[in-house]
Amino acid sequence: MQTKNVAVVGASGYIGEEMVRLLMQHPGANLTAITSRTYKGQRIGDVFPRYREADLTFTEPDAAAIAAVADVAFLALPHGLAATYAIPLLEQGLTVIDVSADFRLRSTAKYATYYGAEHPSPELLAQAVYGAPERKRAAIRGAKLIACPGCYPTSVTIPTCALLRAGVIRPDGIIVSAMSGVSGAGRKESVPLLFSECNESLRAYNAVGHRHTPEIEQELAEAAGVDEVVMNFIPHLVPVTRGIHSTIVANLADAHTSANDLLAVLRETYADEPFVRVLNAGELADSKHVTWTNRCEIGVAVDKRTGRAIISSAIDNLTKGGSGQAVQCFNIVAGFPETTGLNA
Amino acid sequence: MQTKNVAVVGASGYIGEEMVRLLMQHPGANLTAITSRTYKGQRIGDVFPRYREADLTFTEPDAAAIAAVADVAFLALPHGLAATYAIPLLEQGLTVIDVSADFRLRSTAKYATYYGAEHPSPELLAQAVYGAPERKRAAIRGAKLIACPGCYPTSVTIPTCALLRAGVIRPDGIIVSAMSGVSGAGRKESVPLLFSECNESLRAYNAVGHRHTPEIEQELAEAAGVDEVVMNFIPHLVPVTRGIHSTIVANLADAHTSANDLLAVLRETYADEPFVRVLNAGELADSKHVTWTNRCEIGVAVDKRTGRAIISSAIDNLTKGGSGQAVQCFNIVAGFPETTGLNA
Amino acid sequence: MQTKNVAVVGASGYIGEEMVRLLMQHPGANLTAITSRTYKGQRIGDVFPRYREADLTFTEPDAAAIAAVADVAFLALPHGLAATYAIPLLEQGLTVIDVSADFRLRSTAKYATYYGAEHPSPELLAQAVYGAPERKRAAIRGAKLIACPGCYPTSVTIPTCALLRAGVIRPDGIIVSAMSGVSGAGRKESVPLLFSECNESLRAYNAVGHRHTPEIEQELAEAAGVDEVVMNFIPHLVPVTRGIHSTIVANLADAHTSANDLLAVLRETYADEPFVRVLNAGELADSKHVTWTNRCEIGVAVDKRTGRAIISSAIDNLTKGGSGQAVQCFNIVAGFPETTGLNA
Amino acid sequence: MQTKNVAVVGASGYIGEEMVRLLMQHPGANLTAITSRTYKGQRIGDVFPRYREADLTFTEPDAAAIAAVADVAFLALPHGLAATYAIPLLEQGLTVIDVSADFRLRSTAKYATYYGAEHPSPELLAQAVYGAPERKRAAIRGAKLIACPGCYPTSVTIPTCALLRAGVIRPDGIIVSAMSGVSGAGRKESVPLLFSECNESLRAYNAVGHRHTPEIEQELAEAAGVDEVVMNFIPHLVPVTRGIHSTIVANLADAHTSANDLLAVLRETYADEPFVRVLNAGELADSKHVTWTNRCEIGVAVDKRTGRAIISSAIDNLTKGGSGQAVQCFNIVAGFPETTGLNA
Repeated sequence: MQTKNVAVVGASGYIGEEMVRLLMQHPGANLTAITSRTYKGQRIGDVFPRYREADLTFTEPDAAAIAAVADVAFLALPHGLAATYAIPLLEQGLTVIDVSADFRLRSTAKYATYYGAEHPSPELLAQAVYGAPERKRAAIRGAKLIACPGCYPTSVTIPTCALLRAGVIRPDGIIVSAMSGVSGAGRKESVPLLFSECNESLRAYNAVGHRHTPEIEQELAEAAGVDEVVMNFIPHLVPVTRGIHSTIVANLADAHTSANDLLAVLRETYADEPFVRVLNAGELADSKHVTWTNRCEIGVAVDKRTGRAIISSAIDNLTKGGSGQAVQCFNIVAGFPETTGLNA
Repeated sequence: MQTKNVAVVGASGYIGEEMVRLLMQHPGANLTAITSRTYKGQRIGDVFPRYREADLTFTEPDAAAIAAVADVAFLALPHGLAATYAIPLLEQGLTVIDVSADFRLRSTAKYATYYGAEHPSPELLAQAVYGAPERKRAAIRGAKLIACPGCYPTSVTIPTCALLRAGVIRPDGIIVSAMSGVSGAGRKESVPLLFSECNESLRAYNAVGHRHTPEIEQELAEAAGVDEVVMNFIPHLVPVTRGIHSTIVANLADAHTSANDLLAVLRETYADEPFVRVLNAGELADSKHVTWTNRCEIGVAVDKRTGRAIISSAIDNLTKGGSGQAVQCFNIVAGFPETTGLNA
Repeated sequence: MQTKNVAVVGASGYIGEEMVRLLMQHPGANLTAITSRTYKGQRIGDVFPRYREADLTFTEPDAAAIAAVADVAFLALPHGLAATYAIPLLEQGLTVIDVSADFRLRSTAKYATYYGAEHPSPELLAQAVYGAPERKRAAIRGAKLIACPGCYPTSVTIPTCALLRAGVIRPDGIIVSAMSGVSGAGRKESVPLLFSECNESLRAYNAVGHRHTPEIEQELAEAAGVDEVVMNFIPHLVPVTRGIHSTIVANLADAHTSANDLLAVLRETYADEPFVRVLNAGELADSKHVTWTNRCEIGVAVDKRTGRAIISSAIDNLTKGGSGQAVQCFNIVAGFPETTGLNA
Repeated sequence: MQTKNVAVVGASGYIGEEMVRLLMQHPGANLTAITSRTYKGQRIGDVFPRYREADLTFTEPDAAAIAAVADVAFLALPHGLAATYAIPLLEQGLTVIDVSADFRLRSTAKYATYYGAEHPSPELLAQAVYGAPERKRAAIRGAKLIACPGCYPTSVTIPTCALLRAGVIRPDGIIVSAMSGVSGAGRKESVPLLFSECNESLRAYNAVGHRHTPEIEQELAEAAGVDEVVMNFIPHLVPVTRGIHSTIVANLADAHTSANDLLAVLRETYADEPFVRVLNAGELADSKHVTWTNRCEIGVAVDKRTGRAIISSAIDNLTKGGSGQAVQCFNIVAGFPETTGLNA
């Protein structure tokens, strides 16, 4: 295993923290730089006391400086800003693994609609590979720009794309109701995210138009082999720190399909995947079983009365839904075993 | 206000505790008996230390003894057992307000299917009134046997029945995804309900065949004026003590209907209801706003792309979803202002 | 009961919210004004959605305007600012019930040391009465300026002052270790108070020099009849929204004193107090038993080996530790039964 | 690194689960057996779904069978039972690493007093080594029977023993107030440990006579070089899953000692320890910084007014307070680097 020099750009949020956690213990990564405009000059332990012993100091995010010390740059920046940094880093020859939304949507029109601004660098979209290892491994292998999926999309697409591709559920009429832990909302000064506001609180938000909607639709359409999927995606904020649970309701293609039939498709599709856990019939996912891991846990039920499949999917939003998946992509790019540094 | 003597039969669970809490401070109720086979002989403060100062002792649940001291009996017993107690109490002339499932379903066949046993007293079903004050006030007024709705059904039916009755959403294709606090699972020795098992855990359960499904379907069908509604109801257990949040997805009857149109229906329907809060367009429900109250908070969004309404509804499972609603029914029966003892 | 017109000045924090909650349901209070510089012009329900139905709008905190509509002003302002508002309100003839720290310390020197600024209105200190109803009822009755105790001091002084006054514990060597819910830190934009920072976190803070230290010492010294008490007060932040639990360790005056002896003192002292609950020997306090109430729950143990009493005391920091106690003082001033509006 | 075959006896509690988690990913351990009388015959994933992929099945705890496949046995059994299993396993030549209380106390009299039964195998006490790596590394190296410290004692003794040995604090008058997460109470059917009972609850328990008291006193006395230490230990149960925070108050030996003086002692003592983190002056410990790690985080303050040190210490009760420390001992015994498998 030839160690790669890596940098984390924008390391001061929860996704950045998780990236640093994973890369510090990764046997094939040499973490040479972490950047933060807010905290530049401070040691990582001053911001994230868990890592007090780590000898890492936040620096100004400067492309040339990063290029001087890193082969691979992980971007954990807000959308819009990520593209700004990706361009010079790619020009300097680095591989860029981005966890923002900037390179996930192939449609610049949808980007503009959902993100409220023109796409910052449409010329890069052609080379961006959507970093879903279970579905795009070959493309990721040779990619220079990897757009890691969002947290909600990861939890939804892993089970749903497999079932759509197999043709056992229909692409129309899909409804997703998902719950996210509060770390998904970021590490920022905000009254609605205070402990006293989130504790004992169950709330829906952005029930129409959440930014992850077009990303999920894009991936589902590709898996179904159709031009377009239009679905409902309804997120909820619930009082856990880590974890996403998505419940996906879809119409069965054939009313006689059983939960075991669907589970058989999932088991076959993901037989060799180290990070996908398909439960038994009668079991549903629990985020607690996958927090602090890169796993996705999937359960399935079928309602014969309504002819619908109910798919239950859980991940850790910061790991499989963020930095763990980014590291998984890094392992593919670097030619490492895919579980390296991820405690599979 | 002529005070009524009341008893709580099966007062040692969370619903029973909430019933006692509400009745102790109710100006028109004189709480003369609380029963519990498990705790008989113990003072209420020994079991629920919040009520240490209350001079109440659990007694054996004996119908004659209860009838000797009470005009109204609240039953907070498991299904099956509730019917057993209802019969002699009704014979003794008491008004029975039951929060179990025994008298909610009009179909004994569905009772048998979902509860796994023959209905214990089908002869009583004809006289049972479903205790949803906002929709059944007149019938409740003269009832001797009131079957208070389940917690999930309350959160779903308040907004959905109004919209169905107005014909603005369609009765087919409804999908409900709901989240419940852990108190909804009862106060019982159970490893899956331990703090360390529920904390940081988001899990689906009973995704098909939950016992509240036929109850919701029965009420929705009545509101829609159709023979039958078949829908999906998918509950989730999340780490709060109190609270239910239901997200109801329904097809619009007319694709041009807006969220404001739906909100106008809800506002008109519930204009005079003290316990129904209809939010503004763009707002969704948060269980934190209604815990420890008898309120139901409702938000609505419309997705023009899919032609669906997304309805967000929150209640406190122990209050509006249980004992508060029972007290509201009691107020109707007794001729008290409906908010009496409920801090509206 | 002659209703009083009351105003809450600074009503947009958690203490202010609790004050509004209590006063809205208080049969002897007519809440005529709530002020907030941040939220002026907004309805209370826009800031605290629990109170959506309330017809109250935040106004600019102007003394003359308040005086025009209120007989009693509750101040829920930061220290320093509270004094600024107290002066003109007192001049206008209002009774001022302040929950800030401005009038709690009799020593301006200690105020300067612990609050880092000269006392803003030392001339008012002479007329301020410390609003601890269980110990100062007579003085409160005729007071125009009431300084309600802090949350930690309330939990500590109720049991400890009684035992000191009876001479059964010694005033030297007292050590208090206390835990507070996160609402005690206020409703403000702050990363350390985010859900994801507080959840699964147990932390000590301000282990030396917490501002409540001199206030506790002042009250303990008075109860013990000594010039000065010097003790350790060590607060901790823990993941609950509401609640304080204080563990007070004190040397027994006589090594033969038992827990029952101490409990007897507490029971006798507080025999007629509606808001003090003295537990039995072998029982210790649990904040869950008193949240959303104005009660203080007290348990006592004695360690014969070390000759020390261990006193366990729990309150709701927003109610008995804040607004509930303020309302209790209001009831005394207004000549209402002391439990009015407090659901005793 | 020569891999050792290891077994976990009593693997179905939280400590057992954590032991399995750590040993499965330990490069020097080959986990050959996990036992549980309750779950024998079931796969580990059926009991702990996080480990669904692990090929491990619970077996009956039989000494001969364990000896046939393991060189080292980790005992995660209740006290009393642990000794019963230790005897035959030692006779079979295994190294026994016990996390129960059976071999921690050198005094059988104190064992009888605090555990309510005669010591089950006093003859083994002479050979038992107290498994505190930071203080007993040399003795652990050659031990056949290691008694791993309790969770509370670990959090208390790491900072306090160092300060006592250096003579900078006095061994008399020590008072410890500690908070524990709910997993410390075990994985058992119990109403007081239900989510709805622990959430929003802060409670003291066993304020006198907690079983960890004599163990802490024994270790502190040894460190201080005195015959006996008598102190107060007061535990609290708080709503986190993992984590212990202990606040230790001790009299300074010399009133002029500063926090920096104490921190210097701690830094010198633990300069080479990978699992001890000494914070800076002004900082106090937060359990969140050490959960899921084997670290102990220590902060110190000094109150000049009272002449006392306030020591703040945090660990993960299941890791450094349980299974992580057991693995650390295993590493010492096996001659592995001490951080092996512990992600230091």
